[in-house]
Amino acid sequence: MPAGSREPPRAWRILESRYAFSDPWVRLRSDTLLPPNGRLLSPCHVFEYPDWVDVIALTPDHNIVLVNQYRHAIGEIRTEFPAGGVDRPTEEPLAAIKRELLEETGYASEEWHMIGSAPVNPAWQTNRIHSFLALGARRIAEQNLDEGEVIRTCEMPLLEFVEQVEAGGIELPALQLGGLYLLQTYLRRSTDPRLAPLRF
Amino acid sequence: MPAGSREPPRAWRILESRYAFSDPWVRLRSDTLLPPNGRLLSPCHVFEYPDWVDVIALTPDHNIVLVNQYRHAIGEIRTEFPAGGVDRPTEEPLAAIKRELLEETGYASEEWHMIGSAPVNPAWQTNRIHSFLALGARRIAEQNLDEGEVIRTCEMPLLEFVEQVEAGGIELPALQLGGLYLLQTYLRRSTDPRLAPLRF
Repeated sequence: MPAGSREPPRAWRILESRYAFSDPWVRLRSDTLLPPNGRLLSPCHVFEYPDWVDVIALTPDHNIVLVNQYRHAIGEIRTEFPAGGVDRPTEEPLAAIKRELLEETGYASEEWHMIGSAPVNPAWQTNRIHSFLALGARRIAEQNLDEGEVIRTCEMPLLEFVEQVEAGGIELPALQLGGLYLLQTYLRRSTDPRLAPLRF
Repeated sequence: MPAGSREPPRAWRILESRYAFSDPWVRLRSDTLLPPNGRLLSPCHVFEYPDWVDVIALTPDHNIVLVNQYRHAIGEIRTEFPAGGVDRPTEEPLAAIKRELLEETGYASEEWHMIGSAPVNPAWQTNRIHSFLALGARRIAEQNLDEGEVIRTCEMPLLEFVEQVEAGGIELPALQLGGLYLLQTYLRRSTDPRLAPLRF
């Protein structure tokens, strides 16, 4: 069994495990499983990814910092929260999102709140996504993009952004709608008076 | 270029396209892209999936219908909304989720509301997820599971479920937190008086 695999609980047994595809960006593991009901499950595909991070970064005026970029999988330019992946093996999620925010937008923030964390999609993927709120975000540098990345940064008032998402004017990835839910819950449960005007 | 691919907008050009991995469950396409900045992007990996569907199914007593199942990618038994994929190439999302709900839980419903649709994760995947609210759900049949599936169905009051998700007692996949956001928005914007007691 490859390193990093986890033993399944109860009576699920891994009979065979191999990488069907592997390169520096993606690893696809194919396991043969014996469930408790004795009916062989093969192949059981597992995508091994590093953890992901994203951020709702707000300026002192409560504008959200957004990125527009071409997304080849759907062939469109999309508006999203800044996001990325944890650099394996040792980078902490908070360090990763600070790095991604700075690289993608040139913005930085002194105040970070972890608003939640969840497995991305346990049906297929090994990884979690960690979501953050950054307050007092300011542009402090130029972008520092990866080879081939073309990212345009924009700002808009948070509540106008939420209104546009809910009215369909901006279509976030389903994964980032989850981040918006975490933000909403965090703001509602927080007793910090500075966060009260942000509730939606 | 493989069938079904979309031409990228503006000056993004596909120089080469091939399948790095393909079987009946997963297709991984690897493209070589020439972005407007002229710096070659290769490989650009794209996962080709059929569209996905999920449902917040409520009984006449406003219990939510949930499924518990072993998720091998994270090695744990998890609680989730019933969900699945559209059978290619012709199945409509509504037909797909009715089929998945019946197969996974034995429940059916007469009243369905589309609460939203979004690309799952445009950074990697081609597909969308379509989310539904089903009212008046009732158990009408036995489960009809795929080879190797072991699914336990349970019910709990919707508002207790939301409270547990927000307090961390139930950890939904990030993707399904997006569905909860869509449900909340749908309930708040609806003028149907039957939906008012469900708002959270």
